[in-house]
Amino acid sequence: MTTRIVELRRGILKKNDELAAGLRHQFTSAGVLVLNLVSSPGTGKTAFLERTLRELRARGAQAAALVGDLETDNDARRLAASGAPVRQINTHGICHLDAEMIGRHLEGWEGVSLAGLNYLFIENVGNLVCPSSYDLGERIRVVLLSVTEGEDKPLKYPGLFNSADAAVITKIDIAEPCGFDRELALRNVNEIRPGIRIFETSAKTGAGMDEWLAYLAEQARPA
Amino acid sequence: MTTRIVELRRGILKKNDELAAGLRHQFTSAGVLVLNLVSSPGTGKTAFLERTLRELRARGAQAAALVGDLETDNDARRLAASGAPVRQINTHGICHLDAEMIGRHLEGWEGVSLAGLNYLFIENVGNLVCPSSYDLGERIRVVLLSVTEGEDKPLKYPGLFNSADAAVITKIDIAEPCGFDRELALRNVNEIRPGIRIFETSAKTGAGMDEWLAYLAEQARPA
Repeated sequence: MTTRIVELRRGILKKNDELAAGLRHQFTSAGVLVLNLVSSPGTGKTAFLERTLRELRARGAQAAALVGDLETDNDARRLAASGAPVRQINTHGICHLDAEMIGRHLEGWEGVSLAGLNYLFIENVGNLVCPSSYDLGERIRVVLLSVTEGEDKPLKYPGLFNSADAAVITKIDIAEPCGFDRELALRNVNEIRPGIRIFETSAKTGAGMDEWLAYLAEQARPA
Repeated sequence: MTTRIVELRRGILKKNDELAAGLRHQFTSAGVLVLNLVSSPGTGKTAFLERTLRELRARGAQAAALVGDLETDNDARRLAASGAPVRQINTHGICHLDAEMIGRHLEGWEGVSLAGLNYLFIENVGNLVCPSSYDLGERIRVVLLSVTEGEDKPLKYPGLFNSADAAVITKIDIAEPCGFDRELALRNVNEIRPGIRIFETSAKTGAGMDEWLAYLAEQARPA
């Protein structure tokens, strides 16, 4: 049984990797920077992304978002308030997005062409385990961690932290009432992924957003 | 491919259900009340459980805990501070506990016999999706939700909330700085699981713990 499962899992991941490679080629050709945002449920991915979309728009950049959830289009509706094009992906019980879902939802997305975008954000299903194995063709994988969650999350979910290109600490406005130990959190992130860029942010107050937006602009610049 | 996956998944779940039925029989015969605690990473399962173990011990009850994590024994070490017997289960990349892991870790647990326990708590891997399909032989499944997470979690993760027997809201001491909308959260829990018992707690201040402990005592009483 175990052998069959492992083989089947390998098959699924190989298929996903092939589809993701195709997407990555498509994104690179179109000149759009694609980011995959992963975190626990409740870390504040949607609030952070909404503020990001709003600020990018204010700076004249073209950004859009695909947002994954098991059920509901709550997040798409929240993100749409930014004015950016947003499309919900409902996975109906699946605990992660995969490359096939991304490809399918890029097709026939009214009013959106990849070539017209500077940034495409993919907000993954809230889950610190399963999304780590599924490449979505993104160039940058961003892991988010809130000050409310416990500083040892990187040690407990090393797979995801280790596959990330950037880390965002969210809700720093409530760090104090949460008793957040900043030094410990930074040390743990660095232990799993040495040298990773870390942003300390609050979607509520806007703290840290300038640094994050500067990073996005720098990453989007053609090499 | 999809048919094969569905069949394989059915096979795994069927096997798990059989093992869980065996565990449930064993737990019932031993007269131990078993609870499976599930939530997002960072909801505060460990802090809530540590306080529960400590207060049960102070009341003369015998309680023990099995705690699941992908990696590290941080939580087992934290929980051991309560004085209760605690055993860590490391899943090494698996996103949930299953009945086989529980059975294996009950064997040869030094100094612990099921018949000597009033309560056995199982702290699942932090994940709002995958644990919902895996019966661990528990009598009560408890879903935890913190005030920091967003009031719509029940709507977005209906599978897990719908399979729960009790809901615990954690970290109510920081409800105000988090802008937690209590009425909305209670309404959403009730929409998915009408009439479920809901406890509003803080492991830090002890708020709501008396009500929770009274519920445990009531559930543990022989019928």
